[in-house]
Amino acid sequence: MTVEPAGTMIYEGKAKKIFTTDRPDQVLQYFKDDATAFNAQKRGTIVDKGVVNNKVSERLFRLLEQQGISTHFIERVSDREMLTKRVTIVPVEVVVRNVVAGSLAKRLGLKEGAAIDPAIIEFYYKDDALGDPLVNDDHLRLLNVATPAVLREMRELGHKINAVLLPFFKERRMMLVDFKLEFGVFHNRLILADEISPDTCRFWDQTTKESMDKDRFRKDLGKIEEAYQEVLRRVCE
Amino acid sequence: MTVEPAGTMIYEGKAKKIFTTDRPDQVLQYFKDDATAFNAQKRGTIVDKGVVNNKVSERLFRLLEQQGISTHFIERVSDREMLTKRVTIVPVEVVVRNVVAGSLAKRLGLKEGAAIDPAIIEFYYKDDALGDPLVNDDHLRLLNVATPAVLREMRELGHKINAVLLPFFKERRMMLVDFKLEFGVFHNRLILADEISPDTCRFWDQTTKESMDKDRFRKDLGKIEEAYQEVLRRVCE
Ligand SMILES: Nc1ncnc2c1ncn2[C@@H]1O[C@H](COP(=O)(O)OP(=O)(O)O)[C@@H](O)[C@H]1O
Ligand SMILES: Nc1ncnc2c1ncn2[C@@H]1O[C@H](COP(=O)(O)OP(=O)(O)O)[C@@H](O)[C@H]1O
Ligand SMILES: [Mg+2]
Ligand SMILES: [Mg+2]
Repeated sequence: MTVEPAGTMIYEGKAKKIFTTDRPDQVLQYFKDDATAFNAQKRGTIVDKGVVNNKVSERLFRLLEQQGISTHFIERVSDREMLTKRVTIVPVEVVVRNVVAGSLAKRLGLKEGAAIDPAIIEFYYKDDALGDPLVNDDHLRLLNVATPAVLREMRELGHKINAVLLPFFKERRMMLVDFKLEFGVFHNRLILADEISPDTCRFWDQTTKESMDKDRFRKDLGKIEEAYQEVLRRVCE
Repeated sequence: MTVEPAGTMIYEGKAKKIFTTDRPDQVLQYFKDDATAFNAQKRGTIVDKGVVNNKVSERLFRLLEQQGISTHFIERVSDREMLTKRVTIVPVEVVVRNVVAGSLAKRLGLKEGAAIDPAIIEFYYKDDALGDPLVNDDHLRLLNVATPAVLREMRELGHKINAVLLPFFKERRMMLVDFKLEFGVFHNRLILADEISPDTCRFWDQTTKESMDKDRFRKDLGKIEEAYQEVLRRVCE
């Protein structure tokens, strides 16, 4: 399969650039090394993060496809580029949580590290200007962002994807603490889009409980690049 | 009916004191003039607020009971005291919204005053130390605060109560912008508790769109006492 990026960048986000291709229903995701946190108030660079996130996402999208979950993934075309189906993104961040961490610990006054079983799901309205606020189903209906049917489907897919990823990471001695998904509409069907990577997941080493993800950047824990590379290594085992 | 408050205060909240009575399954609510806002960071006094809130709540609880909605109301025993069934409060603030205002405008970036139809419902975890955070159904399940059945019932009751109150206030030339409800369990049944008053509702005058509620205190709009008295007058029409 040959890819001919038309070279037109249609979107530059915090972590990726999106390019058109010669096919109207396909786009190229280019993974950058730029790192941001706290709604882009903290900025930096994580060397080769783009390569890691591209390859980790490839592995996980392939795994999910094998398990019958439709994703936007077509193929990885270079170290930093992934060819995907062009979707209309549903502006909702779907967060799945297996362990208390981050904003959940703060919001509910719970201890970091407590197990959550069954997993819980949160919806955040994807809007940088508003700081990606937590929302409920009624809010999303009011915003005309998603119908009740789409919300139900995103929740179901969140749990299904979790059921595939949890054992995958466990075999690789990692706790999948939580992760963020984005879905999009492609030819009238809802499919998984964006990326699944150490930027969008919390991974803790099973033994040491050390963070192997963007929390190392958020909290200035050091050895950021090493952690990203270690995730890639384990994911490719 | 005679009431004999045993005189033991079992709880002092921001706006009310709760006393035991000679019956174990009844408590007396005493309505204070103390006013707080922004999670009690702003404090003040609204003269005779306690009297207004007690009488407004009485009128609205009677109205709701007439419409088949169970409440904790038994009788008003003085200007500032209301005898109620003693419930186990579900620590969830159920907010019903007919018009965009306050935190909803901020959260979703919507214009104050926009109509919401059908009404939307929000759940806040009633916990002062956490600042009463917005939560979703999964959070409340995780906190063991309410079962899915109780959440469904609170949502249904929120809509039913709104359907009773909306026309009642409209006839009195007031827009019922939004309001907060608390429910409690009494003899294994969920009933409406706490108060419904200018402290817990947003009312806008139909014509001038001026606030007739605690927003006058929150935003230092003046004529606070006058607004509370006017609400009482209209509610008793
Ligand atoms: N298959 C796709 N088609 C169209 N847009 C996509 C696709 N996958 C992801 N996107 C969107 O492209 C952008 C990816 O860039 P990113 O740097 O993550 O942006 P952001 O800063 O908005 O999160 C996101 O807005 C994401 O929603
Ligand atoms: N019928 C009832 N039985 C027991 N507790 C009640 C009842 N109605 C209301 N409450 C609780 O009593 C307290 C009323 O006092 P308030 O000043 O409103 O307190 P707060 O500052 O906690 O909101 C609230 O905590 C409320 O949940
Ligand atoms: Mg992104
Ligand atoms: Mg109260």
